[in-house]
Amino acid sequence: MLKYGPEAADRVFHALADGNRRAVVERLTHGPSTVSELAAHLGVTVAATVQHLRVLQDSELVRSEKTGRVRTCHLDPAGLRSAEAWLQRRRTAWEHRLDRLGAVR
Amino acid sequence: MLKYGPEAADRVFHALADGNRRAVVERLTHGPSTVSELAAHLGVTVAATVQHLRVLQDSELVRSEKTGRVRTCHLDPAGLRSAEAWLQRRRTAWEHRLDRLGAVR
Repeated sequence: MLKYGPEAADRVFHALADGNRRAVVERLTHGPSTVSELAAHLGVTVAATVQHLRVLQDSELVRSEKTGRVRTCHLDPAGLRSAEAWLQRRRTAWEHRLDRLGAVR
Repeated sequence: MLKYGPEAADRVFHALADGNRRAVVERLTHGPSTVSELAAHLGVTVAATVQHLRVLQDSELVRSEKTGRVRTCHLDPAGLRSAEAWLQRRRTAWEHRLDRLGAVR
């Protein structure tokens, strides 16, 4: 697992800031897919899909393995969990602060 | 609240893909701040801070109000919650799929 420092957070949020890359994540929640299946699903070229997959793999949102000439992609939950944990920590810090203010008033 | 369509998701994840903007979110979990306090906290100019705040406001991560010459910024939990919900839905869909596979095997 990536150390979840500033660069890892930059990468995972940047990866998710694109509709096609979110569509890949969404698709892979239903099960593994080959690169050509993902390209067909997105309606873009295989080359464009490979570029998106690189960004997703760099941020631990997707992993893949090659058998013969076919590359199969899987969702990697590490990236989703890290990003979700980052957001949740900030939201709960904010909510606890509101609770403390409420207790003082 | 923004309709959480593809554009809203693009905006919130793009906003969070920058270390300075995440530092603003982090800082505001501890309470409201003026623009100059945020600029000092980030160690960047007020102009650069205002640019970051625009991106954060467009994605409902921050809201602000002006009293006289002072603009005060607050965390807006809507953006955090929307992004967290997006991630959580995909992670749980993936986990349920694994559970179903486990039940079949």
